[in-house]
Amino acid sequence: MDHRSKFEGIWKRVRSELMDHVASEGMVPEAVEWYGKNLDYNITGGKLNRGMHVVETAQIIKGEELDDNEYYKAAVLGWAVELISLKLEAFLIVSDDIMGNSMTRRGKPCWYRMPGVGLIALNDASMLESAIYYLLKKHFRHTPYYVDLLELFHDTTYKTEMGQLMDMTTALESNFDLNRFSLDKHRLIVIYKAAFYSFYLPVALGMRLTGVPESYTIEGKTVEPYKVALSVLLPLGEYFQTQNDFFDFSAPPELVGRIQVGTDIVENKCSWCVNIALALATPEQRKVLDENYGRKDPAAEARVKEVFEAVGVRERFAKYEVDMYEQLKELVAAIPEGPERGTLKRQIFMIYLEKIHKRIA
Amino acid sequence: MDHRSKFEGIWKRVRSELMDHVASEGMVPEAVEWYGKNLDYNITGGKLNRGMHVVETAQIIKGEELDDNEYYKAAVLGWAVELISLKLEAFLIVSDDIMGNSMTRRGKPCWYRMPGVGLIALNDASMLESAIYYLLKKHFRHTPYYVDLLELFHDTTYKTEMGQLMDMTTALESNFDLNRFSLDKHRLIVIYKAAFYSFYLPVALGMRLTGVPESYTIEGKTVEPYKVALSVLLPLGEYFQTQNDFFDFSAPPELVGRIQVGTDIVENKCSWCVNIALALATPEQRKVLDENYGRKDPAAEARVKEVFEAVGVRERFAKYEVDMYEQLKELVAAIPEGPERGTLKRQIFMIYLEKIHKRIA
Repeated sequence: MDHRSKFEGIWKRVRSELMDHVASEGMVPEAVEWYGKNLDYNITGGKLNRGMHVVETAQIIKGEELDDNEYYKAAVLGWAVELISLKLEAFLIVSDDIMGNSMTRRGKPCWYRMPGVGLIALNDASMLESAIYYLLKKHFRHTPYYVDLLELFHDTTYKTEMGQLMDMTTALESNFDLNRFSLDKHRLIVIYKAAFYSFYLPVALGMRLTGVPESYTIEGKTVEPYKVALSVLLPLGEYFQTQNDFFDFSAPPELVGRIQVGTDIVENKCSWCVNIALALATPEQRKVLDENYGRKDPAAEARVKEVFEAVGVRERFAKYEVDMYEQLKELVAAIPEGPERGTLKRQIFMIYLEKIHKRIA
Repeated sequence: MDHRSKFEGIWKRVRSELMDHVASEGMVPEAVEWYGKNLDYNITGGKLNRGMHVVETAQIIKGEELDDNEYYKAAVLGWAVELISLKLEAFLIVSDDIMGNSMTRRGKPCWYRMPGVGLIALNDASMLESAIYYLLKKHFRHTPYYVDLLELFHDTTYKTEMGQLMDMTTALESNFDLNRFSLDKHRLIVIYKAAFYSFYLPVALGMRLTGVPESYTIEGKTVEPYKVALSVLLPLGEYFQTQNDFFDFSAPPELVGRIQVGTDIVENKCSWCVNIALALATPEQRKVLDENYGRKDPAAEARVKEVFEAVGVRERFAKYEVDMYEQLKELVAAIPEGPERGTLKRQIFMIYLEKIHKRIA
């Protein structure tokens, strides 16, 4: 069985645990049924990269195949990452949709667009989050790292919300002023809104599960592995999100299944593309950006895109990709690695890097 | 200083801790400012009963005034209860509002109605929840009951969401059928959607803080105090929510500052009133209820209200109040109580009971 099928197979068991629990609480049958539909509709169809990366991390650190019990625990944490992702993205999806944007996700209509669902979807999203803490309690309560797992989910959630808030307040149209944008601000926003939950969380969970300590020594050198992981995974997440920003500008909508594609310009987003354009623009081009960026008007959007093309955003991105790939490879190569069990391995990060490098959407 | 002013005074310090933290994370100034407004706008103006009850419970169990440090910790937990209440209610408020209902809360416009806020309010509500886990980590990480606090918040949140889901799926208009309603179902819904977070949570937090153990012995009898607390506080919460259901039918809108007043009938809610009416209705009255309950039509609503009056819902409620008060007094009187520190005292429950008994809104 391939990695993905095995991981997907675990979902059935996790789903049963969640359904048995709400039924045992005495939830009325129509609510139990609703919850089942919520789980089924939303959890399926995704790429599952984040969830599977928990399992991969644990496997690499252990240095051999996980036994059935270890695999199940790793997969439960992986599904918990998928659940928190759904919760964190639910808000954006509902907002986007109410704002009149895309109505599909993963190629099917948004959950809350389904007949009769509507804003019950907001409660449903919160229940996906609560399911995480139920699963952690059930499977990890008696482990020494239970509190670490809880705090990882809490901290990551808060940071992602901070990122979403920065993303939204920066884009507020009550204040059209491109002077408020900068590449530093862009970096901060994307790291908070994406890198922590998509990149650091899965690896850190895999590390906790396999007992990676706060620090250890390799060839006489002290290593703080969670800090090391963060120091690689945050720029990796930044790279990933910068790709998304570029695809938002460059990709034809039919190519990309993600939400919000092609909306950054009209939504006044502090995206990588506009920051690059601001850095390169002539005074005339800057004037075009000032007057047209963030306007809900296709003609204005087209004028912005012309400037993006003229200043060479595409070429800059090609160079950015080459540079980031090299920098990240160097960062990974510098991670102290030894044969000891329960320590960081460079492979964890290389898998990620190769997956996202040169992806086309 | 009175109890309320002292409790309110602590908020300033808690607020500073939260603001300092997001600033130290590097959040951009406009996002930090936004977060401050979110906190200020939403936390103020409430009755604070839930939050203050944490402090009262701790005080009663200790048997003397809390010292400054104890008071601060109790108040932090109290403010955490206020924060989780805001989060749990935010969904209902936004839903109600988008559905076209009331636009005020605590006598002022809903947060998300404020200029420029909109659906950012959903992220804001999640940040209020995340703030709780930050505060718990900061103040309780090194206590032996830290995990108990985390689990109390997780479990209570999940249960409340289950209650909201049951409330909504039962009221779904895709299926007008009063046979789906019953007093048992009503009890289950209100206990889950209200009693756990409004009644059990504050007391259980106060108990954890003062070191009340899982069980102890009084006069040779084993007491499981958390179960005892639950056995009193869930019916107390049911009583409180039944009052709300009755006020929804009986109270003139200008009297009541809560959301949703006077909307249960048109929203097809499984309220106490309709269940009483169903139990007492003649076949003719039942036909009127079947044909008019849950319809978005003032004339239909008026016909339902006539049936409520005719079957005597008011008189039944008066009797219900007398009966519940007596039953709850008996439940409280039966709680084993001794002079030992760190054990349950009946007074904790009597304060609650007297506060809600015969309240008029």
